[in-house]
Amino acid sequence: MGNPEGLEVGDLVRVVKNNIVLEGVVMPATEFTSPDVVILKLGNGYNVGVSVKNAKVEVIKKSYAHIGGEALRARTSISGRGTLRLSMISTGGTIVSKVEYETGAVKPALTAQELIELAPELLNEVSELEVIELFRLLSEDLTPSHWSRIAEEVAKRIESGAGGVIVAHGTDTMSYTAAALAFALRNLPCPVMLVGAQRSSDRPSTDSVLNLRACPVIASRAPFGEVVVVMHGHTSDSYVLAHRGVKVRKMHSSRRDAFQSVNDIPLARVDFPKKTFKLLNRRYLPRSSLQNFTVRAKFSSKVALIKAYPGMDCGIIDYLVDKGYEGIVLEGTGLGHVRRECIDAVRRACEEGVIIVMTSQTLFGRVNMKVYTNGRKLILAGVIPGSDMLPEAAYAKLSWLLANVRDRDEVRALMTCNLVNEINEVHDAEIYPRWYHG
Amino acid sequence: MGNPEGLEVGDLVRVVKNNIVLEGVVMPATEFTSPDVVILKLGNGYNVGVSVKNAKVEVIKKSYAHIGGEALRARTSISGRGTLRLSMISTGGTIVSKVEYETGAVKPALTAQELIELAPELLNEVSELEVIELFRLLSEDLTPSHWSRIAEEVAKRIESGAGGVIVAHGTDTMSYTAAALAFALRNLPCPVMLVGAQRSSDRPSTDSVLNLRACPVIASRAPFGEVVVVMHGHTSDSYVLAHRGVKVRKMHSSRRDAFQSVNDIPLARVDFPKKTFKLLNRRYLPRSSLQNFTVRAKFSSKVALIKAYPGMDCGIIDYLVDKGYEGIVLEGTGLGHVRRECIDAVRRACEEGVIIVMTSQTLFGRVNMKVYTNGRKLILAGVIPGSDMLPEAAYAKLSWLLANVRDRDEVRALMTCNLVNEINEVHDAEIYPRWYHG
Repeated sequence: MGNPEGLEVGDLVRVVKNNIVLEGVVMPATEFTSPDVVILKLGNGYNVGVSVKNAKVEVIKKSYAHIGGEALRARTSISGRGTLRLSMISTGGTIVSKVEYETGAVKPALTAQELIELAPELLNEVSELEVIELFRLLSEDLTPSHWSRIAEEVAKRIESGAGGVIVAHGTDTMSYTAAALAFALRNLPCPVMLVGAQRSSDRPSTDSVLNLRACPVIASRAPFGEVVVVMHGHTSDSYVLAHRGVKVRKMHSSRRDAFQSVNDIPLARVDFPKKTFKLLNRRYLPRSSLQNFTVRAKFSSKVALIKAYPGMDCGIIDYLVDKGYEGIVLEGTGLGHVRRECIDAVRRACEEGVIIVMTSQTLFGRVNMKVYTNGRKLILAGVIPGSDMLPEAAYAKLSWLLANVRDRDEVRALMTCNLVNEINEVHDAEIYPRWYHG
Repeated sequence: MGNPEGLEVGDLVRVVKNNIVLEGVVMPATEFTSPDVVILKLGNGYNVGVSVKNAKVEVIKKSYAHIGGEALRARTSISGRGTLRLSMISTGGTIVSKVEYETGAVKPALTAQELIELAPELLNEVSELEVIELFRLLSEDLTPSHWSRIAEEVAKRIESGAGGVIVAHGTDTMSYTAAALAFALRNLPCPVMLVGAQRSSDRPSTDSVLNLRACPVIASRAPFGEVVVVMHGHTSDSYVLAHRGVKVRKMHSSRRDAFQSVNDIPLARVDFPKKTFKLLNRRYLPRSSLQNFTVRAKFSSKVALIKAYPGMDCGIIDYLVDKGYEGIVLEGTGLGHVRRECIDAVRRACEEGVIIVMTSQTLFGRVNMKVYTNGRKLILAGVIPGSDMLPEAAYAKLSWLLANVRDRDEVRALMTCNLVNEINEVHDAEIYPRWYHG
């Protein structure tokens, strides 16, 4: 199922064999493709499979997708008949994968023009729509240093007067990035909306169009200045939800309504086809004035997220400490536990200045480490209870704090403080989903 | 919030100070207890706080809870007026914590007599109720070697003619143990029911009584011979669910209805107060004859469960390989991805014979590694897609296969085969919970 050595999907290559010259873009191999065969999309649009055995193969141009996170900052812009200045920062993911599927090439993606082709009505709502392609990465390849660059780019758009910023993003780690941006961008004058797609934009079943169409509605109607994830609320095209970035999680590998709020309710919904905006959650950070907007975009790369399991290898904690890690978020069991055997390793880590935060793999609910012996021992060892924070949000928060707050005691204190509604002190009954019980 | 050095909850101690001798059991410290003060429950039932400064402190008897997993195998039994032979194997956890809260002591827990006192109606249903205390551990301290001992003990009860076996278990890792037992115990002639409590049995709000009362109903009425988790389906005492052990997860840190089926629906429910049994799921393993029952109780301790996250340290995989691990279950993102940077470490692990299985941290849905580049590269590197298995179930399955199947190619093949309904090929719409959307 792979391509011959050195050739990757999207590369423009020239194959010379038996005096025949073929030039084309490398297409994805199928499971029936022999390992020595490359499938090329030729200039005439036809695909051809050719064996590279005894052939001269030359890569004319590497695909953008494999350059690996180099900032592109290609910018396109288009004028509309509306009043909203909307910016979209593209980081990659399925939502901008239309071109890849159409041509096999992975060229700088979704332009403003292509975005309008997907959702023409945007022209009625925006005075200007600009699209900045920052990078073109699958979201599992993003790291805390990418979060920094996204935060800086969003800040630039806001400072230049955008009335809403869309971040097109792969869905795999979208909730991590959303949480990270929520800590980095404060006193927002407008919503920052992470948008993705579970089905690529060239498929009839794509969810990207509706998600994009909801963005100007949220940008113009929402009272909140928060980082939100804007994704389908239903498998049909009936409504889209804006979830708080620090309280959302991808809960399904493929459904359009994969993103769901955990330990909180969504901030708002947009119903289609009428595009009515409905505020669902009264607890939100209101829009701020542009003067008060701040950005602190740094993140530490020396934080790890470790899940506890029966018989967990405590040496993983020692390994991270020895490697110079500054923080560890534990995804413990139940109310916030790891096995007794690991408490010594945890204590040693804390003594060496590593900040350890406890969250729960139950996802719903709150850690409470005072109930059982192991929890109390962990607190004595120095572990910080993470309240009802999602492991993902706690990870982004700790990475952000360690890069922006010098004093470690202050980092520890701030981990337990509610900064941007990442901690929800009151859990109403409706935040726990209803399960099928017959 | 801790006790003075060397003293642990449940220890029987003697404190001699200013010619006064106090003997009692160490109680949990509160957050207001000074570090030098120990709270003792005296023989007369009163609690007293005493500073250990300038005092002579002697531990007369260490608490059982801190001996650490030594098999106790204390057995008590009681006769009833019914027809069902029911066995309960106690491993510890909140459900058997009544005695601890009442007396401060952690002595061998729930006897058959005490179980009857909790749920007197059991006498009408059982011909014999036996209680075996195997160990008394918080479930986060259980390891794969404890799974082996529980499996062996359950097998003994079944072979001696039990019509149902209850395993009293802490809730933290109950779903891991349930999955492990499902692989170890095959062709079951009766249900094996893991039961726990989110509130200890001495509290008026305890859920343990209802969960226990559902067990004889399931043992006598259920058509299935499966390992199930028997826990509240609702926050009230209205009904209890029997979840398939390989498809259940603790989804909330504290709610009574914390346990929920994922990628499957519960097998059955028992409604109270009428104790009506209702089969919810037509897909189940039917009861087998006792002759066909088999047990293969071994588990490998050389399996790890690792969660992927943005910027994940790929060295963790190298660390596990170097330490001689035989298997790794990855909890990847989305359809089953880890960052591109880690693919080399994954390939090296597979080349050295480590079996790597991919699951998804979305929990719901199925991995599909053929859609995106990184997934395809992971398959080429040797990673086995885990279909819709929960990370917990995949972890127990791989640990069981590695201990029971010699040939590694067979282990790899069996990981993708459905053995005990741990893989569900058809996801009906109702298995995804309904979330609050206003």
